[in-house]
Amino acid sequence: MSRTSKDPWLPYRFAGEDAKVSLAAIDPAAKPFSGGSKKQDKERVDALALELDELQNLFYADRRYRLLVVLQGTDTSGKDGTLRAVFGRMSPLGVRTVAWRAPSESERAHDFLWRIHWQVPSAGEFVVFNRSHYEDVLVPVVHGDIDKAEAKRRFAQINDFERLLAEHRTVILKFMLHISKDEQRQRLQERIDDPAKRWKFQRADLDDRKHWDDFQRAYERAIRATATPWAPWIVVPADSKTHRNLMIATALRAALKSLDLRYPDDDPAVASIKVQ
Amino acid sequence: MSRTSKDPWLPYRFAGEDAKVSLAAIDPAAKPFSGGSKKQDKERVDALALELDELQNLFYADRRYRLLVVLQGTDTSGKDGTLRAVFGRMSPLGVRTVAWRAPSESERAHDFLWRIHWQVPSAGEFVVFNRSHYEDVLVPVVHGDIDKAEAKRRFAQINDFERLLAEHRTVILKFMLHISKDEQRQRLQERIDDPAKRWKFQRADLDDRKHWDDFQRAYERAIRATATPWAPWIVVPADSKTHRNLMIATALRAALKSLDLRYPDDDPAVASIKVQ
Repeated sequence: MSRTSKDPWLPYRFAGEDAKVSLAAIDPAAKPFSGGSKKQDKERVDALALELDELQNLFYADRRYRLLVVLQGTDTSGKDGTLRAVFGRMSPLGVRTVAWRAPSESERAHDFLWRIHWQVPSAGEFVVFNRSHYEDVLVPVVHGDIDKAEAKRRFAQINDFERLLAEHRTVILKFMLHISKDEQRQRLQERIDDPAKRWKFQRADLDDRKHWDDFQRAYERAIRATATPWAPWIVVPADSKTHRNLMIATALRAALKSLDLRYPDDDPAVASIKVQ
Repeated sequence: MSRTSKDPWLPYRFAGEDAKVSLAAIDPAAKPFSGGSKKQDKERVDALALELDELQNLFYADRRYRLLVVLQGTDTSGKDGTLRAVFGRMSPLGVRTVAWRAPSESERAHDFLWRIHWQVPSAGEFVVFNRSHYEDVLVPVVHGDIDKAEAKRRFAQINDFERLLAEHRTVILKFMLHISKDEQRQRLQERIDDPAKRWKFQRADLDDRKHWDDFQRAYERAIRATATPWAPWIVVPADSKTHRNLMIATALRAALKSLDLRYPDDDPAVASIKVQ
């Protein structure tokens, strides 16, 4: 992704080289990748999802790389919806998702990356983290459970950990789903009002909403500290679900197409086997 | 699934109560669940896959049950294809697949159910085993690595283990994908002949093919010993891929519909919350 003045990724992609992210400067309702109508964009997402399915198949056959996608964002920012729209056409064999929750007591008895490391992708595998190790900085920072020095240490530990993965051929893409506070209000209200969605609502969501500004600041710091060439962040304007899917699918496709994916070399003797 | 003379499941479903399976008596090319043309059956599979997606969503919301699906069958019997066709419309969030391979050295340093137990479904989760703990009897039996007494012990251990899971509200469905030897020949040859599929071919597949009759006998014994009311086996005629998908999707739908799935009770106070 080149950095020309017309590069559409420029305001959204952060790899630690130059501009520092300012979330307030990014409009959650922007649609920089839209091709026109919502209908057109939806068709494009469907087409990309099918193409990603084929790329996943080749990626698996190739076996030289691993793929780790991190989805972060406040409640209702659309992590589940992204999974369905962007990864939903792949075979269940091809993609593994891990939904991270607050660590258990026995997990907290280890360093915060212990349980994460166990779940990273193996050769040829796509893994999507629905929330991630970033929660282990964002939440305690906002709740005042760790101080700035500890947050800084954790960011450095995350960078080292992600570099370890990248040096073992893990492609890492980190997406921050960026919605407005008003969009979250509407989505939470929808959950409450719809009896079939009410079970998804948790009172704790309202507590986190009270800390909206703190979370925005915490995200900004996290992205600034951990946007690296080997594990870039992409801030995705996500008030529009269709555009969010389009942008993530487009970024994923570009990352996969930039690899020299190929089927493994054949054993030349195999082609002539006749099965008895 | 009642046991009337017209019960279409009768020749295929084994729950340890009555008839013992005889694989030779089941035609791999049979299509007992076909509604007519292949096109009709395909449409039915697609419709079932969408319905299963909704049932999975409800199952997840309900959280009282766990679902474990075991897919077993010789090479090329269609385990991967089943995953895509039957489970492929669910969100990647909703279904977790585990592809079991030969145990590693450190796994072999434990009992054979140790690594399996770790991967069973949690509350509300769908897990599909692509191969399973049954390989730990089938393969060593055929290769002569364990004797009859040890095989018998392992079957008893499996039954106890599966009862433990069932008593913790795990719905267990075990499918044996039953293809003919000639169908396997054609499918292996196809893999060899198609450059885009050749990477899937392994010479070891031909070695296992030489033991075809031994594997059929081993499967028969395994099904007889481990068909239980709490973890039944279904033998799926699988020469037709469409019919295989149709039969498995139908069985899965029936199992889910027999549960009293429902959204969890609301906190009555939630419905009136207005998000600020």
